[in-house]
Amino acid sequence: MSSEKQPEKKRDPNNPCLFCKDARGVSLSNEHAYSARDSYAVSPGHTLVIPRRHVASFFDLMPEEINACMELISGERRLLDQEFKPDGYNIGVNIGAAAGQSIFHVHIHIIPRYQGDVDNPQGGIRHVIPKKGHYTRR
Amino acid sequence: MSSEKQPEKKRDPNNPCLFCKDARGVSLSNEHAYSARDSYAVSPGHTLVIPRRHVASFFDLMPEEINACMELISGERRLLDQEFKPDGYNIGVNIGAAAGQSIFHVHIHIIPRYQGDVDNPQGGIRHVIPKKGHYTRR
Repeated sequence: MSSEKQPEKKRDPNNPCLFCKDARGVSLSNEHAYSARDSYAVSPGHTLVIPRRHVASFFDLMPEEINACMELISGERRLLDQEFKPDGYNIGVNIGAAAGQSIFHVHIHIIPRYQGDVDNPQGGIRHVIPKKGHYTRR
Repeated sequence: MSSEKQPEKKRDPNNPCLFCKDARGVSLSNEHAYSARDSYAVSPGHTLVIPRRHVASFFDLMPEEINACMELISGERRLLDQEFKPDGYNIGVNIGAAAGQSIFHVHIHIIPRYQGDVDNPQGGIRHVIPKKGHYTRR
């Protein structure tokens, strides 16, 4: 009998898909999509908008699914403005592992931003390529 | 008479608005939006999708403007796939100076991504908050 501890097994978020199962903590929902706060929030109020259909790429969404997502983005903006009073937002999606996607069920990030949350916010989502985020206007 | 050099005056991209004027280098266009390659590309093929109407915030777009932008995002994806053969994409928008917006006319970034363009791409647009981009799944 061994007393060695087994390393804790981490849940694979893709098997079963974390965003297909009955979502706990749903914030808003409609026919084709729902929203939920991000479990690894990068800022207070960080929220995901998730189409119900299991598809990996944003490019594979149908127009009615995109519209459903846009409706929830607007609704979340109202909720987040009230609850968190952010000074701005980044909205974006990662498509493919090379772009940083790790759960292969489309999810659109809504990231509330706050004055001073980073030293120099200029560039915003340009910072996906960390050294290229800042630029000097010619 | 002075021989001092005047510091070169940098163009203010908001006055007049860089994205309202007759755009050079338009890639695709439709009734409500156009696309163009980014002048400060963070990756080969970095493209902007820009509604024609001058409005600062993505949240102030009307449904037909959002649909027009989505149409151009799809069209650009086809063009960029052909020309640059990226391995993924980030798509996103900055809303407000606190979120890194510096030209106050809505523009949606399409950032093609390539294997190895950063050491660890995981997180993607989470990197708007640089230290929070990476996370370890619990």
